Amino acid sequence: MTGEVLGAPEAMARAVSLAARGPAWGPNPRVGCVITAPTGEVLVEGWHRGAGTAHAEAHALATAAEAGVDVAGATAYVTLEPCTHTGRTGPCADALTVAGIGRVIYAVEDPNPQAAGGGEVLRGRGIEAEFVPDAAARALNSRWLRAMELGRPYVIAKWAQTLDGRTAAADGTSFWITGEEARAHTHGTRAEVDAILVGTGTVRADDPSLSARPPHVADPHQPLRVVMGMGDTSGARVWRDGNAVAIRTHDPREVLDMLWRRDVRTLVVEGGSVVTSAFFRSGLVDEVHAYIAPALLGAGTTVVSDLGIHTMTDVLRGSDVTTTQLGADTLVTAAFTKGP
Amino acid sequence: MTGEVLGAPEAMARAVSLAARGPAWGPNPRVGCVITAPTGEVLVEGWHRGAGTAHAEAHALATAAEAGVDVAGATAYVTLEPCTHTGRTGPCADALTVAGIGRVIYAVEDPNPQAAGGGEVLRGRGIEAEFVPDAAARALNSRWLRAMELGRPYVIAKWAQTLDGRTAAADGTSFWITGEEARAHTHGTRAEVDAILVGTGTVRADDPSLSARPPHVADPHQPLRVVMGMGDTSGARVWRDGNAVAIRTHDPREVLDMLWRRDVRTLVVEGGSVVTSAFFRSGLVDEVHAYIAPALLGAGTTVVSDLGIHTMTDVLRGSDVTTTQLGADTLVTAAFTKGP
Repeated sequence: MTGEVLGAPEAMARAVSLAARGPAWGPNPRVGCVITAPTGEVLVEGWHRGAGTAHAEAHALATAAEAGVDVAGATAYVTLEPCTHTGRTGPCADALTVAGIGRVIYAVEDPNPQAAGGGEVLRGRGIEAEFVPDAAARALNSRWLRAMELGRPYVIAKWAQTLDGRTAAADGTSFWITGEEARAHTHGTRAEVDAILVGTGTVRADDPSLSARPPHVADPHQPLRVVMGMGDTSGARVWRDGNAVAIRTHDPREVLDMLWRRDVRTLVVEGGSVVTSAFFRSGLVDEVHAYIAPALLGAGTTVVSDLGIHTMTDVLRGSDVTTTQLGADTLVTAAFTKGP
Repeated sequence: MTGEVLGAPEAMARAVSLAARGPAWGPNPRVGCVITAPTGEVLVEGWHRGAGTAHAEAHALATAAEAGVDVAGATAYVTLEPCTHTGRTGPCADALTVAGIGRVIYAVEDPNPQAAGGGEVLRGRGIEAEFVPDAAARALNSRWLRAMELGRPYVIAKWAQTLDGRTAAADGTSFWITGEEARAHTHGTRAEVDAILVGTGTVRADDPSLSARPPHVADPHQPLRVVMGMGDTSGARVWRDGNAVAIRTHDPREVLDMLWRRDVRTLVVEGGSVVTSAFFRSGLVDEVHAYIAPALLGAGTTVVSDLGIHTMTDVLRGSDVTTTQLGADTLVTAAFTKGP
């Protein structure tokens, strides 16, 4: 908070907590900025509120200018390397230079080739700019960072299943495999991502609304609804407003290319089995969210269909597992591609 | 501990912790006994060490006799109602009477029709005998109590699976789906039960040793190995010593009847899919232990085969779920029949 005296690690931790106020979705990462006097006293703070609004550094500097606070010779703690490009806002490296900032500490290097190199630019201008890696700052944008590295949306495959890996009974019914807590959790994830994808088969079978209804959130962000495949889905609920797109292909790469051009950085693939399997077969699933009910069906649709795996040594194995009990259900998350 | 002064709840809690020193397996329940003076001072303690050894009350009374401690007029806290029958040892109700115990508090009523009624017998002799239900005392023998109620062994179905419910790949390979922590946990469970069962198919396919090798236990109890079915398994590892039995039937009820007559109270069914499904179809699975690896196969053997379930409303659903992360794997346990 302004006026507080912070050491370097505390100042960066504060910047991280400011960054977390920004939206997890959207084309831009979450960034926070704390500017301190040489005594460590916090002069101003800022954070990025999402695409089209000021970057964290610009927000902090604007606040300083409004309040008549002199930041000449001050230190700026920024969770991400200051940008060098002019997008919807000007380059932050320039703004910091003009304001007379004496020292810049940044916690993550900018992986965006169009925006990277801010540290170098500042050092070239005689400003002390130092990269001090910070795990919390990286974790805050881990999906976005991975997407930038891959040059495609970060893909989360999500499903609800019985213990025996069924997502629907033999007659196609699937409501409700998991309980309320698990469903609420799903809606929380939807509100954090840019897009949700299902196949035309799922739209025809279940006619899902694919909206985000997290509990205790009045007006959540609604991700873009994406329908992939060739089936006729006219009249389905997903088309109730303009926030939806049909991509008439069976190729996950084509889908991701198209979504990337639409600024989608994070995508949840919600099935069905054919679509989910296609993403796995293409090696395009980064993270799995399996909601597992303590139940057995013995028959019906499986989580994935043939993945071309014939023997145990070729099993597709996730890492970085987390386990969360949600009512009677269990959420298992795992990484299926390795992040930066 | 002897000499300590305990209130009634503390004395019963102490009796429960003594009971826990006994073996979880075997035909007898785990029982603890604390005898206190009217002041609350602990005079002697006892616990049951397993079939063929003294019952908890007899153990405590023998200790008193040896030490020359007078227990006339004392209170005995026993985790299970004192027995009335003469098995390999004499009736505890009589031993307590002879010793001049003035008051008996017991935490669980004996469900064994041959041994029950000890409370009534004592009251008939003018001894104050009171049933004070205790959840911890009940939990300690929950599987044994359920078995006595059902008149058949308590059945735990255990398996290791991928997220998509596969227990083996398309070519039949299954080593190793789960990691070391999960396997160690399995061995801990084996050392707590009376018998482990597999089908002849599993013996022929995997030739398992079915031994208990829990970590940090020098000489664990080895459960009876049971092989069910018609296949030829001669020469398999399960027959390496006399601690194994073949039951040539496909009917789980027949198997449980035979094992019950052999004093088996707890049984782990370790598959394969055909055997596990037969137990589920007969409604004979009390508890599930599913060890879930963060992995996908897309094809291969499933946890269970057809259970005769066609629609979601008929799904077989467990309750009392617990979730435990074991390394990269997740253990989900659930109750599939309702206990007492």
